[in-house]
Amino acid sequence: MMRFDVVTFGETMLRLSPDGFQTLEQAETYQVRCAGTESNVAVGLARLGLRVAWFSRLVDNPLGRKVAASLRGHGVDVSHVIWTGQGRIGIAFMEIGVPPRPSEVVYDRAGSVFSQMQESDVDWSLFAQARHLHVTGITPALGPSCSACVSRAVRRARESGATLSFDVNYRRKLWKPEAAAATLGPLMAGVDVLFLTSEDAAELFGIRGEPETAVRLTAERYRSRWTVLTLGAQGAAALAGDQFALQPGYPTNVVDRIGAGDAFVAGFLFGYFQGELRRALQLGLAMAAIKMTTPGDLTYTTLRQVEELIAGVTPSVRR
Amino acid sequence: MMRFDVVTFGETMLRLSPDGFQTLEQAETYQVRCAGTESNVAVGLARLGLRVAWFSRLVDNPLGRKVAASLRGHGVDVSHVIWTGQGRIGIAFMEIGVPPRPSEVVYDRAGSVFSQMQESDVDWSLFAQARHLHVTGITPALGPSCSACVSRAVRRARESGATLSFDVNYRRKLWKPEAAAATLGPLMAGVDVLFLTSEDAAELFGIRGEPETAVRLTAERYRSRWTVLTLGAQGAAALAGDQFALQPGYPTNVVDRIGAGDAFVAGFLFGYFQGELRRALQLGLAMAAIKMTTPGDLTYTTLRQVEELIAGVTPSVRR
Amino acid sequence: MMRFDVVTFGETMLRLSPDGFQTLEQAETYQVRCAGTESNVAVGLARLGLRVAWFSRLVDNPLGRKVAASLRGHGVDVSHVIWTGQGRIGIAFMEIGVPPRPSEVVYDRAGSVFSQMQESDVDWSLFAQARHLHVTGITPALGPSCSACVSRAVRRARESGATLSFDVNYRRKLWKPEAAAATLGPLMAGVDVLFLTSEDAAELFGIRGEPETAVRLTAERYRSRWTVLTLGAQGAAALAGDQFALQPGYPTNVVDRIGAGDAFVAGFLFGYFQGELRRALQLGLAMAAIKMTTPGDLTYTTLRQVEELIAGVTPSVRR
Amino acid sequence: MMRFDVVTFGETMLRLSPDGFQTLEQAETYQVRCAGTESNVAVGLARLGLRVAWFSRLVDNPLGRKVAASLRGHGVDVSHVIWTGQGRIGIAFMEIGVPPRPSEVVYDRAGSVFSQMQESDVDWSLFAQARHLHVTGITPALGPSCSACVSRAVRRARESGATLSFDVNYRRKLWKPEAAAATLGPLMAGVDVLFLTSEDAAELFGIRGEPETAVRLTAERYRSRWTVLTLGAQGAAALAGDQFALQPGYPTNVVDRIGAGDAFVAGFLFGYFQGELRRALQLGLAMAAIKMTTPGDLTYTTLRQVEELIAGVTPSVRR
Amino acid sequence: MMRFDVVTFGETMLRLSPDGFQTLEQAETYQVRCAGTESNVAVGLARLGLRVAWFSRLVDNPLGRKVAASLRGHGVDVSHVIWTGQGRIGIAFMEIGVPPRPSEVVYDRAGSVFSQMQESDVDWSLFAQARHLHVTGITPALGPSCSACVSRAVRRARESGATLSFDVNYRRKLWKPEAAAATLGPLMAGVDVLFLTSEDAAELFGIRGEPETAVRLTAERYRSRWTVLTLGAQGAAALAGDQFALQPGYPTNVVDRIGAGDAFVAGFLFGYFQGELRRALQLGLAMAAIKMTTPGDLTYTTLRQVEELIAGVTPSVRR
Amino acid sequence: MMRFDVVTFGETMLRLSPDGFQTLEQAETYQVRCAGTESNVAVGLARLGLRVAWFSRLVDNPLGRKVAASLRGHGVDVSHVIWTGQGRIGIAFMEIGVPPRPSEVVYDRAGSVFSQMQESDVDWSLFAQARHLHVTGITPALGPSCSACVSRAVRRARESGATLSFDVNYRRKLWKPEAAAATLGPLMAGVDVLFLTSEDAAELFGIRGEPETAVRLTAERYRSRWTVLTLGAQGAAALAGDQFALQPGYPTNVVDRIGAGDAFVAGFLFGYFQGELRRALQLGLAMAAIKMTTPGDLTYTTLRQVEELIAGVTPSVRR
Repeated sequence: MMRFDVVTFGETMLRLSPDGFQTLEQAETYQVRCAGTESNVAVGLARLGLRVAWFSRLVDNPLGRKVAASLRGHGVDVSHVIWTGQGRIGIAFMEIGVPPRPSEVVYDRAGSVFSQMQESDVDWSLFAQARHLHVTGITPALGPSCSACVSRAVRRARESGATLSFDVNYRRKLWKPEAAAATLGPLMAGVDVLFLTSEDAAELFGIRGEPETAVRLTAERYRSRWTVLTLGAQGAAALAGDQFALQPGYPTNVVDRIGAGDAFVAGFLFGYFQGELRRALQLGLAMAAIKMTTPGDLTYTTLRQVEELIAGVTPSVRR
Repeated sequence: MMRFDVVTFGETMLRLSPDGFQTLEQAETYQVRCAGTESNVAVGLARLGLRVAWFSRLVDNPLGRKVAASLRGHGVDVSHVIWTGQGRIGIAFMEIGVPPRPSEVVYDRAGSVFSQMQESDVDWSLFAQARHLHVTGITPALGPSCSACVSRAVRRARESGATLSFDVNYRRKLWKPEAAAATLGPLMAGVDVLFLTSEDAAELFGIRGEPETAVRLTAERYRSRWTVLTLGAQGAAALAGDQFALQPGYPTNVVDRIGAGDAFVAGFLFGYFQGELRRALQLGLAMAAIKMTTPGDLTYTTLRQVEELIAGVTPSVRR
Repeated sequence: MMRFDVVTFGETMLRLSPDGFQTLEQAETYQVRCAGTESNVAVGLARLGLRVAWFSRLVDNPLGRKVAASLRGHGVDVSHVIWTGQGRIGIAFMEIGVPPRPSEVVYDRAGSVFSQMQESDVDWSLFAQARHLHVTGITPALGPSCSACVSRAVRRARESGATLSFDVNYRRKLWKPEAAAATLGPLMAGVDVLFLTSEDAAELFGIRGEPETAVRLTAERYRSRWTVLTLGAQGAAALAGDQFALQPGYPTNVVDRIGAGDAFVAGFLFGYFQGELRRALQLGLAMAAIKMTTPGDLTYTTLRQVEELIAGVTPSVRR
Repeated sequence: MMRFDVVTFGETMLRLSPDGFQTLEQAETYQVRCAGTESNVAVGLARLGLRVAWFSRLVDNPLGRKVAASLRGHGVDVSHVIWTGQGRIGIAFMEIGVPPRPSEVVYDRAGSVFSQMQESDVDWSLFAQARHLHVTGITPALGPSCSACVSRAVRRARESGATLSFDVNYRRKLWKPEAAAATLGPLMAGVDVLFLTSEDAAELFGIRGEPETAVRLTAERYRSRWTVLTLGAQGAAALAGDQFALQPGYPTNVVDRIGAGDAFVAGFLFGYFQGELRRALQLGLAMAAIKMTTPGDLTYTTLRQVEELIAGVTPSVRR
Repeated sequence: MMRFDVVTFGETMLRLSPDGFQTLEQAETYQVRCAGTESNVAVGLARLGLRVAWFSRLVDNPLGRKVAASLRGHGVDVSHVIWTGQGRIGIAFMEIGVPPRPSEVVYDRAGSVFSQMQESDVDWSLFAQARHLHVTGITPALGPSCSACVSRAVRRARESGATLSFDVNYRRKLWKPEAAAATLGPLMAGVDVLFLTSEDAAELFGIRGEPETAVRLTAERYRSRWTVLTLGAQGAAALAGDQFALQPGYPTNVVDRIGAGDAFVAGFLFGYFQGELRRALQLGLAMAAIKMTTPGDLTYTTLRQVEELIAGVTPSVRR
Repeated sequence: MMRFDVVTFGETMLRLSPDGFQTLEQAETYQVRCAGTESNVAVGLARLGLRVAWFSRLVDNPLGRKVAASLRGHGVDVSHVIWTGQGRIGIAFMEIGVPPRPSEVVYDRAGSVFSQMQESDVDWSLFAQARHLHVTGITPALGPSCSACVSRAVRRARESGATLSFDVNYRRKLWKPEAAAATLGPLMAGVDVLFLTSEDAAELFGIRGEPETAVRLTAERYRSRWTVLTLGAQGAAALAGDQFALQPGYPTNVVDRIGAGDAFVAGFLFGYFQGELRRALQLGLAMAAIKMTTPGDLTYTTLRQVEELIAGVTPSVRR
């Protein structure tokens, strides 16, 4: 009895960000949204039509309820979330810059109720209800108990026959490259779909070179079935078995680039479930390009809009 | 006794649109403005200094009054508008996208009081008070009685010696190309100024090829005195008698492209009234370029600003 | 197998309203929310902790999706909603006044996809999954097919053993008192919980007098098991079998009174399910009082906040 | 040939005010509206259905155009306004307080193009086109040339048979009571309708006592045909020939009280034109009460709304 | 060499609050301000014209800089603040309610850089530069090291001959009444000015009864030179030596009551420095009343506005 | 005893500007900030860590206090500002355009309290407390008494051994090129750092040609020790003694270009104080590039952000 096409598992923070390209210091109001790589992916997949659950731990106060309402609004099942009476939700203050000013994230997530989750808090049976589990390298960065939970979720999902995807998602403000590499290596080993950026490949794992070389090296070392290397503005490369594909990104006017990587993952996984490598890359890159045209971490696109971008039939005005 | 330099006639809707490049689904507030190709043209012409009346049908509720107030604020005479006690105003929900996400119009105009206008509702004497009448291909798309009203307005204006301009303005969400071509052809025949886009020329009338070819073909077929083919980012081409001119557009940073075509028409007509083809193209393209730098369908420019753009003396900051 | 504690069934509109006590004509932005008496009740019940589904018909465009997302965010199940590819969503333009200026609703709901729902569109099995069905007198006002659907839903729910509540909710802008009385009478007959305002009792059914008199008359005539008469600022009266109770309202500073009646219904029903008449009135009036302190049709309260108001232990600041 | 029912003449400023009850020092945004007692009256009268022109002097820049557009939007004729190429528009920074914090106006109107108007700038023929002229005691406060223009407008209107109303409108920040009394006395003499507040009556003219006493004293001294004394929250008193009437105000929740006096004048004059004293008071007080429920100097009401308030049939929600 | 009239010492948080009476869960934007009882008092005193320094510990990121900029903008010296490179600023999510919905503070201040301050971090010489030191019962609630710092600041200030004020400011969400009473008692002993609310007097110290009785009991027990008991809407009572005074509050329309107590303290201390008991109460209550008419913790008033309220000469509009 | 690293002296206006690229005529709200070249420079320098005072004259009303609070918030000392009880603050209405629509400043500064400053108002001793004085060509444009004050400030600073920088800053809307050249020449002579744009060099002083030629000509003619010629998008050129350097600008996405020149001056001066010509250009251009990415005249950057841009290590997102 598979209730969910995909389960994702990770922390979601309140995202507070100025609008109109103001700095955090300058703005008198902050937009209130939510942000978390795993829930971002969940929203992307739900909008493409899949049954998706997000597992996490939230505090039962107006802020925790706000996060749950936002994700539920997009159609993500949040009924397995663990609610706590005490504690705090993590916060990400995000300043959206335009070049040459970087977008800047001031994390305030230490001590969040998610980061304090223990294995014993969890009803692990959820992970037996999914066809696919998606986790990332951020959760293990939040501490040993989080790391243990990820490992257990992965084990449990595999035991139930679920496939598994892993996004490295290295965050410099959370830990050092060496620590990340040491912790993440075992989790990456043998996953069905492995995502990493070319910068992370180089900095954490010393994997450099042309995309094809890098992606083959990665796949060999981690025995991932499908392996995806994202290349920023250059697009993305992927290897499925022996089939390699390189796809350039879609030109885009950036309104807010944060969340684009997660939109890519959602689009790619949607293609992966259909078993088509090239299409997976196109779906991922189209999702990412459209995400960057709207503010906030979450995508508001539809499969139809994504298909039109891939087909190259997007007008400038539709009326 | 000509009271108006120009009369325009058509439907104006309430325009509801998110700001900050949010999607319609995402936004918690919508900007409230008005939108209607004929009233957009009226506003453009009034801002350039002409006496302009807009004829239409509105419901006497806060929304209808809001539309009238907006146009009147720009100096357009709305005293001939027919007010009804019942019914609804058409609404256009407009999502302003940046590439590769299209701007998207969700029309909610069916059953509007304008679309239900009957010939017998109208005091046709207004059309004897104008030197020039401007109508478009949108009104006939709204149904047989609207179509009949446009035809009668055109006849009446001609009988009084007014000149006539017609903008094809094909809207895919309103009708099929074949129906549009069949209905609009007779209305286009013999007008003093005919506007169409190169896409509409191709899709509705099968007129393709280089701008000069296409515009000559169009003029021949519809016996229009002046014929204008707009070419998107490439500018516009026009034919007046045997004089042909092609003018590139002015480079512009797009804030909101909707209404640019109507600003073009207003600028071009202003030049047409002066009898100068090249200048008409320049005025039209400058009006369009400036319109795209501000939000909303309506232009807020002045003749002086337009002239400076044409003269190439616009500074980046004037202080 | 009862999946839902309560099912509600009715139309939900996009609610567009100015803020800061501006008029609809004056405001340049409208707040975008959703409004519908049955979904308002559903949200209230879901926030109090019940499993609630809302059944309706929506158009699959950004506006329909926005309404669904809003309700789903509050925890209401919307998975049984019928989605249509074409058509429009009803709109309610709401101007929030302060005395002596009335709050004013400009309805633009004619021709909505909900109002065009046919019995054959519906999978009626949903109504066999509910312990309780809540419907109102607005749906029958939308036309014969809507009226037929309400009747059928009621029959189906009863056949499955569900209890039934009915809120008269007379809307002067939708129909005449006589037509309303004629249509609603049969639907009211024998319901488990009947809600009506003292104004509607008088205007539609000629039932006047002291609250106790009026509520007894109503209960006799319509054979309702529980009967609730709301008295505006005076509170509410109710009769359960032979037990009568009159409860004054909680003093409140009104920010937006719209939706207060629906919050009352949600609170009362919550008490009804517990079988306590006095408490039902208190819960209803507390829900209404708190709702009026926030903008929008929907309540954002929690059971704890409601209980504290009833217990009289609400501080002015909690810190 | 009377083109206008009423002509008003005076300065209109840009009104800049914080919202949400912030102070001027605190707010990061100001609402931009316009403010001027005579144009406020003009808007009120136009909304009640009269043909109204406003005469003034504006600078031809975006700010002057904004003021003209706002008034024109309400249906006031601004075609006689004198436009200047140079100079500045007066500004009123308005802080909207709630008790015990006063609303505070920081005037920045010195040197405005209006205050520098000369008699020779004016085409005085406008004043021969009005049935009625309304002026106030603010214009003479702006300097000798403004004072001369008011006198001449009054003379000219009288010569054409127009009736005349005068509102004392003493502004402490503009001049001293003695100077005001000396200048305004001659202008008040013999007007058809004289408006003053009980505070101004006392402070400028030493007229105190019960409303009836005060209004009779005023009428005697200034030989005004109709004389109106406003009493703040107590309502207003008026004398027409020998008929005296005292009318209490309508209870109101104040959102922004500025402009209420002008709304009163508009309503009263509307009744005056109908020749009914009691109704004039009711119309004035109802207009004032409704104005106070919306932000900004200008009223957005309709005759219907005003009539309903007078008739006492205003619901709390109309739907 | 006394550089400062007053030094205050305590934590200041980022204050995030919805506007328009929305709930925290509902709002899509939060206003960003700062909040801290000691800095609120500092701002109040600086606006009244005193030289004031605020001592605290902040993180050197955009949020910490924002807090410092806000206080510095009001004229408070922040040059002695300790800046840290790491860590987080405390956050107070504040929901502004209207009755019967309480204003609600969701504290997220655990682990803030202030709460982790050690005695060894501080250059205690600042406290030798003040004529007066103001501290509150919140700082000791943040932990033993904070408590130790307060004690040392108090000692140091006394050694330099500074006078001392202490505001009990009990926060239920931070600690239990018994713990508070035990910790605060020693700090309250012998202060020059002691502030407490009648609720805190009862709940922490078991001091109840008529204001005069309660304030005398308090003064006796804690040997405070001046003792002030605030009574909510009833005003405040104070005892200076043997002189007792009771002063009712000024009627006020509440926009945001948070910070009113701190405005009271600032006003009272200003009067205390002048040695006038009655005037101190008036100044405190007037400051509090005016603060409640503006949003945010900080007051924006001026001494002139306060004096006018006390003198009873505040108009409803000043123009 | 040098209390300040830099003193700047000039007028600061209230800056009122629409957001979202609206025109001044169109917008219903204006952002309220402050604008003044000398205070802009002061803020830039203070943010880089220097002790900076700004000298000016302000009116003691909410608007003057707002300006002072804004600058003080950035750490600029405003304690020497002269406060007047009467008069007005200058206003700059700023419309932020995108090409081809220019940003447009509508000045409303005539008669401001600054422009009416007399030498006798000033306590000139401030200028003996600075290591460096920065003035610009705008102040002399405001009238003879302002011009005299600048001259005296310059003399006084030199007598105390301060170095001196002068920014030509020609404003076409304030005076003619010939008048500017005649007045500014003597002030420019012999300054330590002279800033001018290539347009001003050409238009005022007839200095044209390649950057190196132009800057050498300028330096020769005005005997400036360091001479800086800004070249718009091309960057800037500078000469220090015989050392010449030309530095291209950093590519930037422009959000609001106003204030970029002042940010450049601040950055350059910071480098000048370190005695490094190339670094001064880099610091200036980096400051300018970053300023253009945020709205408002004032920069919100930090030295670290500037250094990273120069070092070329700015990521697109830092997290």
